[in-house]
Amino acid sequence: MSMNSFGHLFRVTTWGESHGPALGATVDGCPPGVPLEAEMIQIWLDKRRPGQNKNTTQRNEPDQVRILSGVYEGKTTGTPIQLMIENTDQRSKDYGEIEKTFRPGHADITYWQKYGIRDPRGGGRSSARETAARVAAGGVAREVLKVLVPGLEVKGYMTQMGALHLNRDNFDWDAIDHNPFWLPDASAVAEWEAYLTKLRTKDNDSVGAAVEVVVRGAPAGLGAPVYAKIDTDLAAAMMSINAVKGVEIGEGMAAAALRGTENADEIYMGENGPEYSSNHAGGILGGISTGQDIVVRFAVKPTSSILTPRKSITKSGEAIDVITKGRHDPCVGIRAVPVGEAMAACVVLDHLLLDRGQTGGVRGPIG
Amino acid sequence: MSMNSFGHLFRVTTWGESHGPALGATVDGCPPGVPLEAEMIQIWLDKRRPGQNKNTTQRNEPDQVRILSGVYEGKTTGTPIQLMIENTDQRSKDYGEIEKTFRPGHADITYWQKYGIRDPRGGGRSSARETAARVAAGGVAREVLKVLVPGLEVKGYMTQMGALHLNRDNFDWDAIDHNPFWLPDASAVAEWEAYLTKLRTKDNDSVGAAVEVVVRGAPAGLGAPVYAKIDTDLAAAMMSINAVKGVEIGEGMAAAALRGTENADEIYMGENGPEYSSNHAGGILGGISTGQDIVVRFAVKPTSSILTPRKSITKSGEAIDVITKGRHDPCVGIRAVPVGEAMAACVVLDHLLLDRGQTGGVRGPIG
Amino acid sequence: MSMNSFGHLFRVTTWGESHGPALGATVDGCPPGVPLEAEMIQIWLDKRRPGQNKNTTQRNEPDQVRILSGVYEGKTTGTPIQLMIENTDQRSKDYGEIEKTFRPGHADITYWQKYGIRDPRGGGRSSARETAARVAAGGVAREVLKVLVPGLEVKGYMTQMGALHLNRDNFDWDAIDHNPFWLPDASAVAEWEAYLTKLRTKDNDSVGAAVEVVVRGAPAGLGAPVYAKIDTDLAAAMMSINAVKGVEIGEGMAAAALRGTENADEIYMGENGPEYSSNHAGGILGGISTGQDIVVRFAVKPTSSILTPRKSITKSGEAIDVITKGRHDPCVGIRAVPVGEAMAACVVLDHLLLDRGQTGGVRGPIG
Amino acid sequence: MSMNSFGHLFRVTTWGESHGPALGATVDGCPPGVPLEAEMIQIWLDKRRPGQNKNTTQRNEPDQVRILSGVYEGKTTGTPIQLMIENTDQRSKDYGEIEKTFRPGHADITYWQKYGIRDPRGGGRSSARETAARVAAGGVAREVLKVLVPGLEVKGYMTQMGALHLNRDNFDWDAIDHNPFWLPDASAVAEWEAYLTKLRTKDNDSVGAAVEVVVRGAPAGLGAPVYAKIDTDLAAAMMSINAVKGVEIGEGMAAAALRGTENADEIYMGENGPEYSSNHAGGILGGISTGQDIVVRFAVKPTSSILTPRKSITKSGEAIDVITKGRHDPCVGIRAVPVGEAMAACVVLDHLLLDRGQTGGVRGPIG
Repeated sequence: MSMNSFGHLFRVTTWGESHGPALGATVDGCPPGVPLEAEMIQIWLDKRRPGQNKNTTQRNEPDQVRILSGVYEGKTTGTPIQLMIENTDQRSKDYGEIEKTFRPGHADITYWQKYGIRDPRGGGRSSARETAARVAAGGVAREVLKVLVPGLEVKGYMTQMGALHLNRDNFDWDAIDHNPFWLPDASAVAEWEAYLTKLRTKDNDSVGAAVEVVVRGAPAGLGAPVYAKIDTDLAAAMMSINAVKGVEIGEGMAAAALRGTENADEIYMGENGPEYSSNHAGGILGGISTGQDIVVRFAVKPTSSILTPRKSITKSGEAIDVITKGRHDPCVGIRAVPVGEAMAACVVLDHLLLDRGQTGGVRGPIG
Repeated sequence: MSMNSFGHLFRVTTWGESHGPALGATVDGCPPGVPLEAEMIQIWLDKRRPGQNKNTTQRNEPDQVRILSGVYEGKTTGTPIQLMIENTDQRSKDYGEIEKTFRPGHADITYWQKYGIRDPRGGGRSSARETAARVAAGGVAREVLKVLVPGLEVKGYMTQMGALHLNRDNFDWDAIDHNPFWLPDASAVAEWEAYLTKLRTKDNDSVGAAVEVVVRGAPAGLGAPVYAKIDTDLAAAMMSINAVKGVEIGEGMAAAALRGTENADEIYMGENGPEYSSNHAGGILGGISTGQDIVVRFAVKPTSSILTPRKSITKSGEAIDVITKGRHDPCVGIRAVPVGEAMAACVVLDHLLLDRGQTGGVRGPIG
Repeated sequence: MSMNSFGHLFRVTTWGESHGPALGATVDGCPPGVPLEAEMIQIWLDKRRPGQNKNTTQRNEPDQVRILSGVYEGKTTGTPIQLMIENTDQRSKDYGEIEKTFRPGHADITYWQKYGIRDPRGGGRSSARETAARVAAGGVAREVLKVLVPGLEVKGYMTQMGALHLNRDNFDWDAIDHNPFWLPDASAVAEWEAYLTKLRTKDNDSVGAAVEVVVRGAPAGLGAPVYAKIDTDLAAAMMSINAVKGVEIGEGMAAAALRGTENADEIYMGENGPEYSSNHAGGILGGISTGQDIVVRFAVKPTSSILTPRKSITKSGEAIDVITKGRHDPCVGIRAVPVGEAMAACVVLDHLLLDRGQTGGVRGPIG
Repeated sequence: MSMNSFGHLFRVTTWGESHGPALGATVDGCPPGVPLEAEMIQIWLDKRRPGQNKNTTQRNEPDQVRILSGVYEGKTTGTPIQLMIENTDQRSKDYGEIEKTFRPGHADITYWQKYGIRDPRGGGRSSARETAARVAAGGVAREVLKVLVPGLEVKGYMTQMGALHLNRDNFDWDAIDHNPFWLPDASAVAEWEAYLTKLRTKDNDSVGAAVEVVVRGAPAGLGAPVYAKIDTDLAAAMMSINAVKGVEIGEGMAAAALRGTENADEIYMGENGPEYSSNHAGGILGGISTGQDIVVRFAVKPTSSILTPRKSITKSGEAIDVITKGRHDPCVGIRAVPVGEAMAACVVLDHLLLDRGQTGGVRGPIG
């Protein structure tokens, strides 16, 4: 019910504005006895962190996470874990001018309409900075998953940036971590780099992106019928990320074009249980995981904060041309990769706990 | 938290299997004093009902809804409303043979794995029949919306069926209710009809579809930041519908291809407040409604129950060719239209109540 | 969040009015594979049922429960279980006159004020009849507990009725089920009988009661810190029963008079783990069960519907003397015994599922 | 569902251990535009703060609250408010010895059993220090109530400390804030002082207490039937406070002794609506407020940490005599007064928001 929480048993509540003193996440329901140090979380925050290269905002935040509760002598205690990230770089003067105007495509206007007040400094609560808290929470989820399902992997990568699409024929899982786009195709990196540089330096524009997250090694049986389907929660988790406008599982929107004969993932008996000849389903049938790769994809719209003027109005209703100066990512989709991974890790862990809560882990035998 | 509920303040819990004695929805948190009769709900169920024409399953259920609680002398009392639909046509012999085999692309196998037991009669809880309960709940939501936001409209229609796409140049809002596909283009109906007939009678196949739902007339200010975004809840609501594999808001997945200059819906001052030159955002910015049309789209995969054999296994792990006889829709996407409408109505009403709960309906003035 | 639900993982939503067509409970999150037949639930409803003897309302309802969903071939499937009880004896003429007046001590006036509408027939939703749905849900919880914690017992009994108190020196667990007061002292039954008969036939009055429920055999480790303490949920569960005005765990309100030296339940090592020299704590320390008997007690106020006139007002604000004719229990506390048991069973089961969800059932070893 | 949250729309999540770096509360769902400064919250923390006089623990924490989010230029923004209190006085050496032993009557043993790990420093999460976070959240609730229901008062006081009872004939509302016991009877303060001094200095013992909280000025119509009754939530809120063993509304447990004729609060027409000749109901009928004073009472058990030895065991199962040195309150009930007030404020505000969410504030007219 809370407006700033997600998850059922493994439940994350985030708080904090872009330019307040700090932001963070409260992680409730974490299993006890799991090794956890700030450094384990920090590596994911470093991955998301802005200011690392010229493709992301030049805001330079160390984004150091502190664990304020729920951990004793390097292990989780089962009580709520508070993860806090202090905001050290709060050049609020950059944002002062936008208090009275609404950026087209931005939450400025709707926050104002709804609440009659908004924190204009860096977008306040609507800033993409909130996703740092998600990444921190996802870091905790990953450590728990490591204990509960050894070998489970959660991996995100870009599949599209504006006009450029990932060529799946070149798909290389090992390339993902070695380029600034988390692109599973090393051969395309230079082209993506050039595309974004032109966009940023010549066009004063931004661009959308698509991100795919794969969960490999999740057991069959996670999820539940109807509203607590694991795909329902994945859809909600991804759509709740700033700027996301679409979410797909497996074939996604392309399923509309398929025939039943094409779409049916045929089943055969493997050595360790059922296997599938294909994965149109994205690892989920009837809201419950099949044991195949769980595949979720989402689209991130282009940043609305651009240097090219757009028509808008002020609070007093006067027409104005808006140009957003300051430090903004030309493609927020890049930094959405670790955020999507974090959300997927949280959802899968939550469903693992829900499943063992309800069923105790019983499984119907096959073969 | 419940696995079969959705909504926060206006909260719907559905129950019931395809071939049990009945199914239904418990609607909690409904505002009091709203005129409500079973007939008002029945019209939406009739719209969803199978057996109406040759394009949908020939199962012939009257799907009569009864209001068992929460209404007194034709008005809601504020207490839970129980909506029950009895299952009258339960030819369970049609389904007996599938108890030991798993249909490819169907929840058969995951239900079995998760629970170690499943009701095989008509798909049990995983049957699309569950959506009748959603449509009934949506009927209640519509009546409440009628009182709270006179003039608000919730309208769904198909935009794609397999290889056929809606030609948006022909878009005709008034055509929607006058053809079996809820297609906003009367001129294309014959082609869609022929396409589906061939699929069903010649190809023994099924096909996917895309459905768009528009909420017209919702006020600005519905939704909330981060996890209770109205698009988060819409995504969850649609993804929780059987067979849905993708959800889009506004531009949806196409946002990945756009530039910031293209995507920004420019704002100008209209007579009654802010207006927008376009609606790439689908009526939602930062998780909060703008007052424009809320536009959500979802893809429905092709029915997995087809007459063409697919390879699968039995419970004991033996290979088998599966053919699904019985009464099945060649395109479940058609009947998903009223279901999507119902979910959208529930989400919008829920957010209306949440908004007046938290903010009391205050709005930041513009102009 | 729902207003008519309780529980977290094992979650019960009740619905229905006293004189509507039916009432019931939707049980969500039930573990799969548990043997369940309507008869197993019916025995608890029969225990609660009115009309059995002259001490309870003469309304004669068979209170037959039907299982409409969630069970297949005699076993739970993990999907929502709908339990419906039809109202067969709806002599609404008995209640017609009270539509315009407010009974002192009754929810008539607050329902009217809050909702601006109320179902006056038999108290509508505020009727004690709602508790039948709880008893049915509790019957399901008991069957699950039987599987998960064999030997666990949930037992309720009266400890006070007006001026009469249970003499704990005579406490006899085996007597409870053999008298109409569920009194653990057979020697006092005649006196209680006479007291209530006089109250009903001579005094035209009603009387309050105290009920104690014991859960014997629950393992240590159920509950959670702070808000999901097992005593928090027990307190909420009991206080949510109609007419309950106080809830106590262990020493309860008497703890205010104790010293630390008296109240500390000393610990020693037993054969199977820690044991305690006393149980002032009522089996709960820091919100978590100790493995001792969980002891919860609650007070039920006297029925407000009595034949002796009380001063009140009508809807139009005029003074009136109210006499409530019709069939009413002189001591609703009697029928609250099985209701309290049902709530305790639901809470304990819910916490069993929550505990294995979060911790997986790990326990810190002692000795 | 979260284990460390309470409230529905106005939802508070607390976090933090006694001797960790900090503790706090995340307040979600707060209405926007409410004036809020740290000082407004600080006054309530100062009231609860230990070390103020010899009757409470000598631990000397300034308990300075910081607002880290959700407030802009002195007003709430509608986004989550993070309230953090740093722990400055963490003399952990005082507690080192108790890591391997279980204090009788304390959560030491159950935390260990449940989680297999516990933070022994100062009781970790089970410390009464957690209540500072509740008091801070309650401070926010009070400021919102000030705006929504001007004139509403929330006031707590002690009614019992061990053998001493408040003499209600001397009840003086104005005396409450002027003595260390929040006792509404100035004439009894010296006796209470002497009693506690002897207990602490001579007897090496602690003592229980009873606290009553009154909410004056709440409108009729707050609450809901069945599980979201306002008394259900008050019972849960109070029982969730450390060391609380009983909760009463109005007559509370004493209702068991009353007759219907005595208990019925007769109604008459006052100048501004219905009034009542008495308030046995404690301001709540059928789970909904009547407009009278809401009266809730709870019992706090004596501190288990005392200097008199009690028998217990160690982790390895060996018998041991436990004496708890260190700084402990002889009567934690004293400091429970502002905690009870805070919880009551949160519950009432939450129900105000829920009510306007569901009903929009409509009220059935009387007279």
